[in-house]
Amino acid sequence: MKQDIYEQSLELHRKSRGKLEIRSKVALADKNDLSLAYTPGVAEPCRKIQSDRKLVYEYTSKGNTVAVVTDGSAVLGLGNIGAEAAIPVMEGKSILFKEFGGVDAFPICISSQDTEDIVRTVSLISPGFGGINLEDISAPRCFEIERRLVETLPIPVFHDDQHGTAVVVLAALLNGLKVVEKNISNVRIVINGAGAAGIAIARFLHNAGAGSITLCDTKGIICRDRTENMNFAKEEVMKYLAPSKRGSLSDAMKNADIFIGVSGPDTVKEEMVREMNAGSIVLAMSNPVPEIMPEKAKKAGAAVVGTGRSDMPNQINNLLAFPGIFRGALDANARKITEKMKLAASRAISSQVPENRLNSDFIIPSPLDREVGRAVAREVAAAWRQEN
Amino acid sequence: MKQDIYEQSLELHRKSRGKLEIRSKVALADKNDLSLAYTPGVAEPCRKIQSDRKLVYEYTSKGNTVAVVTDGSAVLGLGNIGAEAAIPVMEGKSILFKEFGGVDAFPICISSQDTEDIVRTVSLISPGFGGINLEDISAPRCFEIERRLVETLPIPVFHDDQHGTAVVVLAALLNGLKVVEKNISNVRIVINGAGAAGIAIARFLHNAGAGSITLCDTKGIICRDRTENMNFAKEEVMKYLAPSKRGSLSDAMKNADIFIGVSGPDTVKEEMVREMNAGSIVLAMSNPVPEIMPEKAKKAGAAVVGTGRSDMPNQINNLLAFPGIFRGALDANARKITEKMKLAASRAISSQVPENRLNSDFIIPSPLDREVGRAVAREVAAAWRQEN
Repeated sequence: MKQDIYEQSLELHRKSRGKLEIRSKVALADKNDLSLAYTPGVAEPCRKIQSDRKLVYEYTSKGNTVAVVTDGSAVLGLGNIGAEAAIPVMEGKSILFKEFGGVDAFPICISSQDTEDIVRTVSLISPGFGGINLEDISAPRCFEIERRLVETLPIPVFHDDQHGTAVVVLAALLNGLKVVEKNISNVRIVINGAGAAGIAIARFLHNAGAGSITLCDTKGIICRDRTENMNFAKEEVMKYLAPSKRGSLSDAMKNADIFIGVSGPDTVKEEMVREMNAGSIVLAMSNPVPEIMPEKAKKAGAAVVGTGRSDMPNQINNLLAFPGIFRGALDANARKITEKMKLAASRAISSQVPENRLNSDFIIPSPLDREVGRAVAREVAAAWRQEN
Repeated sequence: MKQDIYEQSLELHRKSRGKLEIRSKVALADKNDLSLAYTPGVAEPCRKIQSDRKLVYEYTSKGNTVAVVTDGSAVLGLGNIGAEAAIPVMEGKSILFKEFGGVDAFPICISSQDTEDIVRTVSLISPGFGGINLEDISAPRCFEIERRLVETLPIPVFHDDQHGTAVVVLAALLNGLKVVEKNISNVRIVINGAGAAGIAIARFLHNAGAGSITLCDTKGIICRDRTENMNFAKEEVMKYLAPSKRGSLSDAMKNADIFIGVSGPDTVKEEMVREMNAGSIVLAMSNPVPEIMPEKAKKAGAAVVGTGRSDMPNQINNLLAFPGIFRGALDANARKITEKMKLAASRAISSQVPENRLNSDFIIPSPLDREVGRAVAREVAAAWRQEN
């Protein structure tokens, strides 16, 4: 079956020679069309924009166009495969932007993994784009690249592996916590994986009012007295974490209420789930093989389980967030994507599960539910307008 | 009427919010579609490309995608209007690529006019593109930018203002010379304008066998004993020019057979055309106002007149060349666009005027004739295959 999906995917990509095409939105049938869309008529929108740069949003596609930028350093579960091999994923992302958010997205695959190169390149090509979606850039470089672009560019810059994941995780938790009747401010949360996603989730859950967060990586709990395998991002995120001594993931999970896995396959054993508090939530998002399979987690006592997989209940999928977040930001002409906009996105996603249907196997809407993107867009745009 | 075209163009651009959209070539209706176009299926084309980088042409849109790159430094007749204000032109160019060549083209508008920045940026984003079309970059920087990109990138790089123009001029001359019954090897050619187009035309006509070429700019004839207003490109092109003393455009045009204007409005007087040899050809391509209006040139004795305008006979328009040239280069998987490919393009364009219809008012096909692009593509691809 897996083999089959891979063979089918190859066939699909080969037959269509990639997944993207660029089309005209205007007619080009006769001389008159040409003289309006190109010379001499096109000179006039150029002159208007030259005299008032804001008009670029009125007369060009910029305001609906997002660059999907990668250096191919951390692609899916495939790792550092480089710019060319990353293209199929970036094209996939781009068509999802269009299909679920009406956003015209175009892949920019950069053949350098140097932070300066990436920041400079994205800045220099930014005039044509209304937003920048950073994708599959490895930690900790991704944090600096994003921070510097957010600081300098007048358009939204969003690293989906960080914030898209964090937004959807919070959306799932908001509903999951209702199911288990707990409050985010007094649960103990354990995150496994301290890459882009894990660090962003820790920060975002803190901003959303989470009381106690413990972050682990392959060397165990991230804490003050640890020195090996640290980096500036792990140092920095500690201000959002519960103070802790050194210990293993297994230590961290004792009496935890929530486990969030953005790590690797089979990193969580049944015993570890058994040691969690009653009414525990396990989001095991390693893909395609979760940190622990749902049936095992449930057998070990988990009340609510989610994964990244489309063939299991509660699929935690960024597709629920990024198209609507950019749609809303572009609609509101937002200069950045703020914490409040992201919180609004999480709430919009969770609100798409009707109260009367909410249960342990339905805490998050289907990624294919097209109403979600529209709801997210509305709330994200409203949040920007309220702040500004 | 002019005002009207400008108002209509503004309205068109405002209504459609730009001219480009990006669409999916594959279905995204259900879970199965998603699992083939995105995760988990997409991992397989990624792995294939990682193991053999050439397969990027098989599994992605790269092989049909061209970047239309500008820095906004020499846009139409508008001059240095910058990256944002150049977008309407680059979008227009991009939709012409699609409409007339089936090429997916995407504007990359760079917010720096530094040669190093432009070369580096284009190199770094090149993995996703099958070709680079440089556009509206001012001379003499455009020559170095193009040379360095051609040298380093394994994909076709083509500065349309140079080579597209040169190809179409030669196409017009091949037929014009038949009308006046002269041979390119023993005519005297005068080019006015020593920017990107003028210099490229001189070089290309030399390579096409032109016997005597004189190049002028606003300071007159470009020659060895001139020092003012020179640059490295003008120095370099002298090896293709007929030896000459200092003189004015008027001096150069005495006893010339062909005048090619890529300069400015009204730079040629009737007296100057009157001093040309009998059976003269005047291509006055300054747009919208030609170097000399056709009726004046004809009254002064010109046998064949062409302009850049769509409302006059013999429109010399790059649209006849660039879509077919890139279509052919991409179809042949060409690594560059060679002189032979450009010559093949010129011949293909001129051959689209049937011998029995050829006359002084019909030396070049209509830019809207869609058969031209197909013929150019076939001949360009054949030329590459023959060379390699």
